[in-house]
Amino acid sequence: MSTIMIGNELNYDVRQPTVLLFKISAANTPHQKLISEELHFNPRLQVEALDFGSEGNRAHRALVQPCKLQISYKATIEMTPEVAHSTDVKEAASAQIPADVLPYLNPSRYCESDLLGRFAFEEFGNLALGFQRVQAICDWVNQFIDYTPGATNATTTAADVLLMRTGVCRDYAHLAISLCRGIGIPARYVSGYAVNLNPPDFHGFIEAFLDGRWFLFDPSKLSQLNGLVRIGTGRDAADVAFATINGNAILTQKSVWASHSNDSAPLPPDIQTAISTA
Amino acid sequence: MSTIMIGNELNYDVRQPTVLLFKISAANTPHQKLISEELHFNPRLQVEALDFGSEGNRAHRALVQPCKLQISYKATIEMTPEVAHSTDVKEAASAQIPADVLPYLNPSRYCESDLLGRFAFEEFGNLALGFQRVQAICDWVNQFIDYTPGATNATTTAADVLLMRTGVCRDYAHLAISLCRGIGIPARYVSGYAVNLNPPDFHGFIEAFLDGRWFLFDPSKLSQLNGLVRIGTGRDAADVAFATINGNAILTQKSVWASHSNDSAPLPPDIQTAISTA
Amino acid sequence: MSTIMIGNELNYDVRQPTVLLFKISAANTPHQKLISEELHFNPRLQVEALDFGSEGNRAHRALVQPCKLQISYKATIEMTPEVAHSTDVKEAASAQIPADVLPYLNPSRYCESDLLGRFAFEEFGNLALGFQRVQAICDWVNQFIDYTPGATNATTTAADVLLMRTGVCRDYAHLAISLCRGIGIPARYVSGYAVNLNPPDFHGFIEAFLDGRWFLFDPSKLSQLNGLVRIGTGRDAADVAFATINGNAILTQKSVWASHSNDSAPLPPDIQTAISTA
Amino acid sequence: MSTIMIGNELNYDVRQPTVLLFKISAANTPHQKLISEELHFNPRLQVEALDFGSEGNRAHRALVQPCKLQISYKATIEMTPEVAHSTDVKEAASAQIPADVLPYLNPSRYCESDLLGRFAFEEFGNLALGFQRVQAICDWVNQFIDYTPGATNATTTAADVLLMRTGVCRDYAHLAISLCRGIGIPARYVSGYAVNLNPPDFHGFIEAFLDGRWFLFDPSKLSQLNGLVRIGTGRDAADVAFATINGNAILTQKSVWASHSNDSAPLPPDIQTAISTA
Repeated sequence: MSTIMIGNELNYDVRQPTVLLFKISAANTPHQKLISEELHFNPRLQVEALDFGSEGNRAHRALVQPCKLQISYKATIEMTPEVAHSTDVKEAASAQIPADVLPYLNPSRYCESDLLGRFAFEEFGNLALGFQRVQAICDWVNQFIDYTPGATNATTTAADVLLMRTGVCRDYAHLAISLCRGIGIPARYVSGYAVNLNPPDFHGFIEAFLDGRWFLFDPSKLSQLNGLVRIGTGRDAADVAFATINGNAILTQKSVWASHSNDSAPLPPDIQTAISTA
Repeated sequence: MSTIMIGNELNYDVRQPTVLLFKISAANTPHQKLISEELHFNPRLQVEALDFGSEGNRAHRALVQPCKLQISYKATIEMTPEVAHSTDVKEAASAQIPADVLPYLNPSRYCESDLLGRFAFEEFGNLALGFQRVQAICDWVNQFIDYTPGATNATTTAADVLLMRTGVCRDYAHLAISLCRGIGIPARYVSGYAVNLNPPDFHGFIEAFLDGRWFLFDPSKLSQLNGLVRIGTGRDAADVAFATINGNAILTQKSVWASHSNDSAPLPPDIQTAISTA
Repeated sequence: MSTIMIGNELNYDVRQPTVLLFKISAANTPHQKLISEELHFNPRLQVEALDFGSEGNRAHRALVQPCKLQISYKATIEMTPEVAHSTDVKEAASAQIPADVLPYLNPSRYCESDLLGRFAFEEFGNLALGFQRVQAICDWVNQFIDYTPGATNATTTAADVLLMRTGVCRDYAHLAISLCRGIGIPARYVSGYAVNLNPPDFHGFIEAFLDGRWFLFDPSKLSQLNGLVRIGTGRDAADVAFATINGNAILTQKSVWASHSNDSAPLPPDIQTAISTA
Repeated sequence: MSTIMIGNELNYDVRQPTVLLFKISAANTPHQKLISEELHFNPRLQVEALDFGSEGNRAHRALVQPCKLQISYKATIEMTPEVAHSTDVKEAASAQIPADVLPYLNPSRYCESDLLGRFAFEEFGNLALGFQRVQAICDWVNQFIDYTPGATNATTTAADVLLMRTGVCRDYAHLAISLCRGIGIPARYVSGYAVNLNPPDFHGFIEAFLDGRWFLFDPSKLSQLNGLVRIGTGRDAADVAFATINGNAILTQKSVWASHSNDSAPLPPDIQTAISTA
């Protein structure tokens, strides 16, 4: 168990009446408990809280008139991940994958697992089944891509990344997800906060469905798994953009932070420890 | 109200132990009521029925040993669509779109609405809001694409179709969905049966979210809306493939049919009638 | 006949031994005569002048040691274009296109005329043949694309532009070339200088092969055809990049200019006048 | 020195007046000498022979009225390749590449070397320079791709092949060319005949520019280099299609053959022998 404090501040120059949809609030789930939370809009607005069903995703939506808008969020979270020894974590048999997990085998906008199926099988199809196979994919992706802020953009897909070998956390995640799906392992995108992320920002990582649960992986290796706080999950980054703007609003400033509380006893970083918080 | 009888027969040459997932059964919803249904596998198999929550999607899954497999399905359906005069159907305000509908604004594997947003706005952004705008998109798509069986394949996307101007019902649907999403109208893919489809086959069409409901459109204009029976809905065709094969099985024969019963009183085909069955 | 003065100054921060290839010098052809020309490298370098055969393309190449490199070029050019009344300019019959022109019917890196053939035929296949058909393509491209500096990059292709409807002169040219080739009219990319271009820069435009000659068009409509000075021609922008860097050199400053001399009598801008300078 | 006999027979159903352009005749160069050649069209036609300048490419063009058209070609060729020991073949220094070779460093329609530059450098940038580096690329491509007739088509590019890992000789060639260009080695596509090709067909292979000459490589490893007869070279397959059809003509039958004459003494197959016939 550990306690993580997170927050962000976003400033927008809203230039016409605009509907803004934010996905910045920590999910509240059995393994990730909200101790406290504050969300402020300045100027004050009528803000609608949205819930997205089974995966715990939340959002906030507001119709905003032209103004300088400041959003500030902070929360304290208690993390109680399930842990397992990685060698004990099996892959789910194809015929046993639950109905609500099946969509995470399908290709999605930024994860063309249909195109990359042969690639995935040739590289990873013959490895021993289990947690280690997903770890091998993440290790491969991490080696394969050069971390390069600015080299990719919001329309870059896993196929693009496989060709260009460059990207940021989001791109690492999309490629790893595609390769997992390509060999029949359900995988999904997770947006969140990460303790000690450098430079500080929202983070993108993944979950793979193994042994009846979703396990965390960070193909970018920029975070420690025990310092991750989930905002939301989706098929890929398209589902969990931190802000969706329908109108005209320019992001003028963004700061994001996350840290362990002094009294928390974070798990030791251990490659052998499989972590599930879903 | 009308009664529609549907069915199909599929034959597979299964060459190794294979997990087969079928999405061929009619959804059972308030507007589409299952009167009777039969699904047979020959040889007899242990078949698992799967349900996919709120949208009424169903599937059947079986682990199949090498054999000549025959699947036959038939059902009788009572359709009680909601109808409205098309000019009465408004667009939903951006800030009013329900949480569970929002994902249908996101780009998906075969519907790159992020790439096509400007295209959509330049062509359709200035039309009067409402049902007619979606109809205008479907009409445009119908004119724009040359119906050409065999010109596209399972990886063809809306962007491909916009470049190549050729495709089948699935491609018409993907392009229309992308253009709807591009101007802020939630849209989704529907797989189903269509009365009098020529040549007979499974059909792909779309629903757009307007005025608080999902309304049917067929950009291919190969069907009449009152002859459609829903199998399932998804973000695009990736979610509702009639068969997903994990192993090695070759489709050797497929026949599909749908017809109005003699005593049904199908709605007159009427361009002014908006139909909702979701 | 008119006289045009052109020039540019380029500054590079060369960080390791680097081979630099520049295509910045005006072509010297019967219709575009070099009156005077100066090209200086500072520091002084051994520079190799390259000639590229039949199309008049030139380049300069140097192996440069780490330094602050300044290139300055200026030239005075006498233009004696052939002019024709546009309605007199026929298309070449397919069987009459000369061997050395045939490659300009083939698709190239940024001009996927093979993908866009149907699009080209549906939009422009039924127009009356001749100069006016190329003009119609250029007019259509000009209307279709939103001029947006920064929206595209060096890997953007005509297909990308057709989807995204945004770009700069290079993108207008690539799309127009692709559509010409798509309906069987040879077309090529021209890099050059343009009088009164705003903002001043190198310019990209096109030539179409009609009636036995190459005629000038500017799909971006940012220039007047009688103010264009050719640097070089190619299948697309890949062939005429103003600088190709093999090593590590950063462009730190670029200025480009072109103006008519006081005593020149430029042709009146006239939509009916077809101009050939090749 | 060896003697190779080649030929083909093509049958077309020409359905409307059509311009047909064939690139099926062996090039006639110092290292590949035409001993005899016959080209027949049935019915008899007025056929124009085209020559394409410095690279020795030839073509034949005819305007054909509706008919059943049969083209038959045969030729006897004397090959006198230059051979070298592969370890003696150096790479050309970047600053020494001749002007007429420079275009083969540029990306082309099916060889997106601009996109794949980083990939090429990461995989092959650190290998020892020389012939062996191109051989390493060809070996890698050969291992990487699954030879699969029908999996790709006329619009498939090197980037597609890198994602899908499947293709035919043309696809192997495009990927190898792209990777060569990506690390600064000029490379081009060669169409031709290959002795003992199985199944018999036209063949696609490559040349890389090393040490002042063009050397042959076959990334598909379906041929022996001493059994290759050049038809033509180009930036990629777009430039050397065996037939280009402007109108409506359907290929109904194609047969292609090539064999060593009895009295020829073909070079022993030897991985250490570098062969140049350009």
